[in-house]
Amino acid sequence: MSGETSPALLILDLTGTFAFALNGALIAVRTARVDIVGVITLGMITAIGGGIIRDILLNGLPPATFQDWRYLAVAAAGALIAFAFAHLLDRLSLPIMILDAIGLSVFAITGATKALGFGLGPAQAVILGTITAVGGGTLRDALLGRIPSIMSDGLYAIPALVGASIAVVASLLGLLGPVTAISAATVCFLIRVVGMHFN
Amino acid sequence: MSGETSPALLILDLTGTFAFALNGALIAVRTARVDIVGVITLGMITAIGGGIIRDILLNGLPPATFQDWRYLAVAAAGALIAFAFAHLLDRLSLPIMILDAIGLSVFAITGATKALGFGLGPAQAVILGTITAVGGGTLRDALLGRIPSIMSDGLYAIPALVGASIAVVASLLGLLGPVTAISAATVCFLIRVVGMHFN
Amino acid sequence: MSGETSPALLILDLTGTFAFALNGALIAVRTARVDIVGVITLGMITAIGGGIIRDILLNGLPPATFQDWRYLAVAAAGALIAFAFAHLLDRLSLPIMILDAIGLSVFAITGATKALGFGLGPAQAVILGTITAVGGGTLRDALLGRIPSIMSDGLYAIPALVGASIAVVASLLGLLGPVTAISAATVCFLIRVVGMHFN
Repeated sequence: MSGETSPALLILDLTGTFAFALNGALIAVRTARVDIVGVITLGMITAIGGGIIRDILLNGLPPATFQDWRYLAVAAAGALIAFAFAHLLDRLSLPIMILDAIGLSVFAITGATKALGFGLGPAQAVILGTITAVGGGTLRDALLGRIPSIMSDGLYAIPALVGASIAVVASLLGLLGPVTAISAATVCFLIRVVGMHFN
Repeated sequence: MSGETSPALLILDLTGTFAFALNGALIAVRTARVDIVGVITLGMITAIGGGIIRDILLNGLPPATFQDWRYLAVAAAGALIAFAFAHLLDRLSLPIMILDAIGLSVFAITGATKALGFGLGPAQAVILGTITAVGGGTLRDALLGRIPSIMSDGLYAIPALVGASIAVVASLLGLLGPVTAISAATVCFLIRVVGMHFN
Repeated sequence: MSGETSPALLILDLTGTFAFALNGALIAVRTARVDIVGVITLGMITAIGGGIIRDILLNGLPPATFQDWRYLAVAAAGALIAFAFAHLLDRLSLPIMILDAIGLSVFAITGATKALGFGLGPAQAVILGTITAVGGGTLRDALLGRIPSIMSDGLYAIPALVGASIAVVASLLGLLGPVTAISAATVCFLIRVVGMHFN
């Protein structure tokens, strides 16, 4: 199944994995009760959780994460780097939010595209793209006992829905390639950043 | 797989989906920290979460929710209606509890019946019916940081177990049809309502 | 799939199921807000949750727990016994911790071995063994609103990783049998107990 992934989508997917691993680990570091194993675990769950939920719902098991070692390697590397340099970034909220926006944008597009490839309908693909984008962070927040962003921050799910919709429409029109995929992710990213600015 | 569902079971299933979507969205509205996207998300998760867990455990993937657009449409409609009229219902606990009892009763029966259709044994079918009934609400509560009803309210799981057991016995006796299914759901509903009254 | 399980692994698996059911139910009893249904539910989720997550990720659905009635029977028996004798054990933290260490050790080995049997690579098998070991307790803690042990107790995941690694290496060397499996579980158990002592 993972063999169907185009190189451009794979690169986007690994970028999102890396960004979310950094983000999840940095959030874990700021939570005093969590130790190094907790930091690595939370970084990896943030990075690969959304894709695993998507692959379960798509019947694409075992998940891509367990079929292709690069996902686990990139997720672990991101979490370790965040742990090592956390003291430099600890007080800065901005990197955490930018990394989250990158992961959100990329996974909305790759998740929706993968769902279409598994034969799901357009509405289902948009929802699965959004689940891919928000799933890892939601698991992270549930494990930390925080209200997940998707529940409390209206402009968290909406950019993912928009990005996934653009990708699905582009795919239905036969226009989905690296350029449209990155454009859709960029639109999602910009909506998210503008939303954070006004929140 | 969803093609095996009889019309009566499908109608019951969609009724439960609608009731749980209203219930989940109304509970979300009462939780001040949650915005409109959170309300819709929580309504939909309450409505389709139990069935998704059931379909994962049954190896019936992708879940019925993603194979048949009516589940998503009914869940989204229920959550939107609850959001629109929440100001009328906000202070009333009774509709929330009645809607929850309806979803619980219906999903216990449809979940157990579907599990039998996938070849699981009677005890497993009873447990899967109960998981279908309580799963969505448990996900909702976990995301809101509340202790799930199934943990703290003894008369929450028991009616579901009774209803699922009646459906399984009726099915083993070759007596399961629309009338017995609705009767089993009614027994579950009545036990739940009596339990709420004395709690 | 469950037919591939050797008798030794099955006995280990049921031992871990029983230990985790006792542990989960005893923890639930100490949590005042949880009633008898909650105690049984939490005992069973602690006992079978890790294996269910493993079987989902392995594409081994329906989970072993739903294919072989002995898992459900042993889990229910453990939870009921813990409920019946909880007043004798209520104030004692030691049995809870020892039972947890037993479940952790056994599931790390059986989970990793099952993952290898499904064709996953060594690193993935180690991770899946660890997920099997910590998954049930993590679900238990998430439902109780506690920070999961794996997040806050560094010496919780590490023994499981070590035990799973030993089992995977033994298996790759063609040396995995009852004796090596029990030895790997014992190493995991001892690291965990020493870790608890110094914590």
